[in-house]
Amino acid sequence: MKFVIDERGKKYILSDEIDFQSDLGIIKKEDIEKSDIGDNLITHLNKEFKVIKPNINDFIELMNRQCSILIQKDIGVVLAHTGIGSGDKVVDAGTGAGAILLHFGNVVGDSGMVYSYEIREDFAKIAKENIDSFGLTNIQIKNKDIKKGIDEENIDLVFLDLIKPYEIIEDAYESLKLGGWIAIYGVYLDGIQISHRILKKVGFKNISIVETLNREYEVRTHGIRPKTRMVGHSGYLLFARKL
Amino acid sequence: MKFVIDERGKKYILSDEIDFQSDLGIIKKEDIEKSDIGDNLITHLNKEFKVIKPNINDFIELMNRQCSILIQKDIGVVLAHTGIGSGDKVVDAGTGAGAILLHFGNVVGDSGMVYSYEIREDFAKIAKENIDSFGLTNIQIKNKDIKKGIDEENIDLVFLDLIKPYEIIEDAYESLKLGGWIAIYGVYLDGIQISHRILKKVGFKNISIVETLNREYEVRTHGIRPKTRMVGHSGYLLFARKL
Amino acid sequence: MKFVIDERGKKYILSDEIDFQSDLGIIKKEDIEKSDIGDNLITHLNKEFKVIKPNINDFIELMNRQCSILIQKDIGVVLAHTGIGSGDKVVDAGTGAGAILLHFGNVVGDSGMVYSYEIREDFAKIAKENIDSFGLTNIQIKNKDIKKGIDEENIDLVFLDLIKPYEIIEDAYESLKLGGWIAIYGVYLDGIQISHRILKKVGFKNISIVETLNREYEVRTHGIRPKTRMVGHSGYLLFARKL
Amino acid sequence: MKFVIDERGKKYILSDEIDFQSDLGIIKKEDIEKSDIGDNLITHLNKEFKVIKPNINDFIELMNRQCSILIQKDIGVVLAHTGIGSGDKVVDAGTGAGAILLHFGNVVGDSGMVYSYEIREDFAKIAKENIDSFGLTNIQIKNKDIKKGIDEENIDLVFLDLIKPYEIIEDAYESLKLGGWIAIYGVYLDGIQISHRILKKVGFKNISIVETLNREYEVRTHGIRPKTRMVGHSGYLLFARKL
Repeated sequence: MKFVIDERGKKYILSDEIDFQSDLGIIKKEDIEKSDIGDNLITHLNKEFKVIKPNINDFIELMNRQCSILIQKDIGVVLAHTGIGSGDKVVDAGTGAGAILLHFGNVVGDSGMVYSYEIREDFAKIAKENIDSFGLTNIQIKNKDIKKGIDEENIDLVFLDLIKPYEIIEDAYESLKLGGWIAIYGVYLDGIQISHRILKKVGFKNISIVETLNREYEVRTHGIRPKTRMVGHSGYLLFARKL
Repeated sequence: MKFVIDERGKKYILSDEIDFQSDLGIIKKEDIEKSDIGDNLITHLNKEFKVIKPNINDFIELMNRQCSILIQKDIGVVLAHTGIGSGDKVVDAGTGAGAILLHFGNVVGDSGMVYSYEIREDFAKIAKENIDSFGLTNIQIKNKDIKKGIDEENIDLVFLDLIKPYEIIEDAYESLKLGGWIAIYGVYLDGIQISHRILKKVGFKNISIVETLNREYEVRTHGIRPKTRMVGHSGYLLFARKL
Repeated sequence: MKFVIDERGKKYILSDEIDFQSDLGIIKKEDIEKSDIGDNLITHLNKEFKVIKPNINDFIELMNRQCSILIQKDIGVVLAHTGIGSGDKVVDAGTGAGAILLHFGNVVGDSGMVYSYEIREDFAKIAKENIDSFGLTNIQIKNKDIKKGIDEENIDLVFLDLIKPYEIIEDAYESLKLGGWIAIYGVYLDGIQISHRILKKVGFKNISIVETLNREYEVRTHGIRPKTRMVGHSGYLLFARKL
Repeated sequence: MKFVIDERGKKYILSDEIDFQSDLGIIKKEDIEKSDIGDNLITHLNKEFKVIKPNINDFIELMNRQCSILIQKDIGVVLAHTGIGSGDKVVDAGTGAGAILLHFGNVVGDSGMVYSYEIREDFAKIAKENIDSFGLTNIQIKNKDIKKGIDEENIDLVFLDLIKPYEIIEDAYESLKLGGWIAIYGVYLDGIQISHRILKKVGFKNISIVETLNREYEVRTHGIRPKTRMVGHSGYLLFARKL
């Protein structure tokens, strides 16, 4: 797999095993295989494609997905609020397309590990292919129902993006290490409110609920201004800690 | 150093070298030294302090600082947008109190490295002590003016929190690897606008400007609602990529 | 009653019937009585107080109140969304301190009328005094429970700021003219959601729910920026129309 | 002119002088002329159109316009912040399509007056037709350049929606009564910042800058949530007062 960008800034993932065809021309698979980061691949129409090292977001942008993904603004809040990092162990459910999962794998590194539960076989399969394709070896996709129990112990973060996250809260508490975090993503305040009550009952501390609004700005001739359109809502995040 | 939490949820950093004194009683240094994560330390007034493994945010909350720090909402945007992770190399300036710096160290892990430039000797010294105290070995504080040049090459992220970040943009471009990001934090749109122009001139791509609003919610008897007070502004973030 | 402003920008309501005393000196009641808008009243310490025509917000700022008031950002949404104006008839409940009530009186003018229901005698009394003091003659305070029924017909706007607004929705529908609006203010989404369901059941159209965030900016030496603190929440507004 | 709404909730303005044709059938001009508010007009296809009294927003929604209009959220802030109401005198420039102008006319009533300056003849003509059509008699459109001077005195509010509002600030100060407000709408902070400086220099008080974010909510089967899309930006409002 090689990650390239054309002269217009468009990104592509190229396979070493088939010739690449585009409106800017053809690149032979032999050329793709031999190329290194920083090289320029030239099409038969003499157009340049630059080989770059993809980062996690390039990959998420292009990867195969069959369901909606968590957006960057929410992923950022989870990373910063829980302080998850090198060497940490994370449990994630459900896997979905695996966007935040790839971010978890990216920050916990080789000394850490991410276990992701996904009840749907098709989603689990795609997520597994995506992870293999990106080359992360610290993520394990588990095609099973997290409601049946969490196998892992001494976890730093349990992240739940489920219809009924509150069913998992007790198990999450058991699986977390002292000081570990639970983070719950939900589109409706109603579900967040139920989870909040259960978190309290189970004994979690430092409970907080947050939503994030991101505004993008644009620079025009007359000055700088927020863009006319923005994302009005993705979801709420509920955090709590085992202390 | 041990990180403990009392029965009210208040956090403390305890030194192994001196007895700890608080309104809940005294803990002897010998007891502190012998304690492990998960243990309870008991004061002479019979109050419990639980020993936990601090995460990065616990540490930032308690660490010594003489200037304002980047807040979580902005740190999260930087982490998620640039996709910085295990094995990456980061250049940071100015160090300040080192809050985002610790987060960088936390996610790049042992295979990564963070170089932080700070012109003020006092700030550099405190930041160094903080990093040593937390035990991160992948961060190097450089007490020099980044305007004099960036020594490192092949960098994944250059993060600038400076009065005049636009003076560093050309050097940042040189030091970045292909596909690397620059992220600039600024309190005023005026400075962001100047930097935006320079980024374009120097040849950066994927330029975007974002500000984040975080709303916290609280659960009361009558239901759930946003908190009355919120942070109206911290700063703007400007991102661009070498492609 | 005269409305004055001192040299520091501080505002006062002066009575014609008693001498005015302040840290800037005394003004005799005879002088207050004789003064006109634009005049300067001079204290015995030779300090100037300028007599101005108060607008509705000056008055709300200084008036006697024993409960919290609707803030400008929410009053503005009600005025703009319902398009209430000259000659319109408004029903309001509960009166509370009467801030939005005064705005209603201000925009419907002499050809319009506002009827305000308040169950608490003490609140009704203060609101009545406030209205008389400001000189509006198109507002009638009714010290009765709106749950017992709305006496008025052919109303342009029914505005409800009550604990259980949904109990009034059927009666509101009856009292409204064709094309008239109902506006409900609520601090929690839970109550808004119940009202939303009832509005639909009763046959209201053009139902919408809105919350407003106001950000203030400040100009400093280095540029312009949002203020650090902002109001994170006051309440939600639910609008619907009889069509 | 009659304002009607069909069975689907769609709104129309009907002329008394021509037959009305739609996909739901034809209504004869004689029927239109005879109809009163609350009547149902029946098409030759037996479809009902209800005659209602349009409010200001119905009219703005349907009126002829050749340029963008101020949106409700910003109109609301102007109305609430300046407290403009019955009997007040307003100067407005430029007229544009006249949306906020109609709101001003609506709240100042028969005892108030609105003077609107518009340099472009085509815009002035359309605005005049719109006002006549809605039936407001307290608005005077002036097809002249406000930079040449403001003819009116003793004004309660000067509202400016111009490219270079700062050129008018001195004249605005002269034309305002003591206690009167100036309100400036601008898309870019850059222009707002210049105006802010001039306002201060000219002697205005109570200067404030505000932007408003409106979030709409929707009720779904699973609960209530903010809509996915929202308006990220319309403009900033700058207020100041002559005191």
